[in-house]
Amino acid sequence: MTQVNDISFIRTLVAEEMKAVDALILEQLEQSNAPLIPQLSRHILKAGGKRLRPILTLLAAKLCNYNSGSRHIHMAASVEFIHTATLLHDDVVDESALRRGEPTANAVWSNSASVLVGDFLLAKAFQMMVGDGSLAALKLLSDTSATLSEGEVLQLTSARDLATNREIYFRIIHAKTASLFATAAEIGGIVAGATKNECNALKEYGTALGLAFQIVDDALDYSAQTAQLGKQAGDDFREGKITLPIILAYEKASDEEQKFWQHALEDTANANDENLQTALNLIAKHNTIEASLKEAENQAQKAIKALTPFPESELKTALVTLAKFTVQREF
Amino acid sequence: MTQVNDISFIRTLVAEEMKAVDALILEQLEQSNAPLIPQLSRHILKAGGKRLRPILTLLAAKLCNYNSGSRHIHMAASVEFIHTATLLHDDVVDESALRRGEPTANAVWSNSASVLVGDFLLAKAFQMMVGDGSLAALKLLSDTSATLSEGEVLQLTSARDLATNREIYFRIIHAKTASLFATAAEIGGIVAGATKNECNALKEYGTALGLAFQIVDDALDYSAQTAQLGKQAGDDFREGKITLPIILAYEKASDEEQKFWQHALEDTANANDENLQTALNLIAKHNTIEASLKEAENQAQKAIKALTPFPESELKTALVTLAKFTVQREF
Repeated sequence: MTQVNDISFIRTLVAEEMKAVDALILEQLEQSNAPLIPQLSRHILKAGGKRLRPILTLLAAKLCNYNSGSRHIHMAASVEFIHTATLLHDDVVDESALRRGEPTANAVWSNSASVLVGDFLLAKAFQMMVGDGSLAALKLLSDTSATLSEGEVLQLTSARDLATNREIYFRIIHAKTASLFATAAEIGGIVAGATKNECNALKEYGTALGLAFQIVDDALDYSAQTAQLGKQAGDDFREGKITLPIILAYEKASDEEQKFWQHALEDTANANDENLQTALNLIAKHNTIEASLKEAENQAQKAIKALTPFPESELKTALVTLAKFTVQREF
Repeated sequence: MTQVNDISFIRTLVAEEMKAVDALILEQLEQSNAPLIPQLSRHILKAGGKRLRPILTLLAAKLCNYNSGSRHIHMAASVEFIHTATLLHDDVVDESALRRGEPTANAVWSNSASVLVGDFLLAKAFQMMVGDGSLAALKLLSDTSATLSEGEVLQLTSARDLATNREIYFRIIHAKTASLFATAAEIGGIVAGATKNECNALKEYGTALGLAFQIVDDALDYSAQTAQLGKQAGDDFREGKITLPIILAYEKASDEEQKFWQHALEDTANANDENLQTALNLIAKHNTIEASLKEAENQAQKAIKALTPFPESELKTALVTLAKFTVQREF
């Protein structure tokens, strides 16, 4: 794959629309009667993030020649609201203190505030979709919301359980991450009145992109530095999340190494710095970061292949580039 | 008001439909891929509760002569899912240990599980509504979800703040409770194809019923016994929730009593048994339980009056009885 170091040209392609998305998001938040809602939401939205999901919706709509209104803006904002709601709830579940280099909302306010504001954002996402009036989009969005939370629940119940194999891992990341990427892309096709075939292609692209994105995220948790990552490296280890670098290392583990993993992951108390270092050494020994990134690259290739039905264009190039960037990013 | 001690005749009126609602709820939960979801949901649904909201939807639909399908069953289940989701999230926010005489889900499993399963139930509610296909119902439901969470956020930010007066109190309980009662009733009218006038009457009925219900709930928190209540009496005091019995006592408080309230409510640490006893004494001194129940009775009368557009019938009698029961219940 060719090297892709940044996606600024992609951002430029949808710069005007993203400005409209941001304005809509702020407008929706300001309408709230409870001042904490815009305060807390602004905190998490200001911290930035890559905004990949709304960008995906905008790119998909434009790829399918949508140019007659602002429905894609509403869809993109709605997708971002759902994503932000899951971030707020995730941070409560994970008891995270840092996200994107900033203290998490639950650390600044409280878990309660994060739970309730997350609920509000979820409701807002549906309100915006209802305003749009497309039952097809509403079906996608409600199905995805159910899948997202199922994925999170599966992740929760699989934590500290080394019976979590590749298959279960893929089921989890498919549900908790790829489903929203898929919907973000497909919904762009829907507003553009794309054919069933095109919508399916976008869904397939989004799914593979989301899988690649999550696999890289999970690899970075063991390979990146805290400053780069904007959250604490080794968090997954401490939380007992069984992600691909561990699954692959456990597959190749000697009896003694298996015992280490079982001990290190069975309790938070065992997730000390010394054990994290041993875990990193075993991950390095079995090259499971590289193997994980190879899996991510396969998914990125699958994403690119899914775009075959679309003729060459600047927008298609953007989506191809996005797939490459997702794998090659270092943060 | 005539005495109403039980509502078994109301339950009989919709017994068949409620059985269908329960079956639908279980069916929807069993579809989940994450075993924790049906486990935890069954725990909270089994604990029972009065099921007032789905009953309301069914009664309203039948009052408006709905008899041609199962849409009211889906709406009632959807309303109950939203309610159950808010219960799960509330218990996390309030750090409650008991609900309806049973340990709360967050106490049995974890806060994380309650947050995520709540999210799942909310998504399921929307999925069912999308399946129904009525944009009017979807609009009501998404607006109500946003209002519910705004109400909870307002309650959170008003806690321990004695500037919370009657007006703010009514705004909070309107949002966090009455809005869903209103929607539960109105949505029954919508599926029945009732007139705008009838739908508005049902909404008004539900709103007043919900206000009455919450005012009584808040009064019972200071007047009922734990065994009767199925949750810990005095919980609101310990959580620093400023409810009507306190607001009315604070309005009438001497300087010394004001100082007591400020001290007792400013910190959980001050919410000990001795201070709870003093609070109960002041509430008794100023008769604020009676005054609260008078407010609830006014709302119940308002609810009954809202039913004027409907001709006399067994179903109308049921709704009138429900309003009376809401005020006179002791649990």
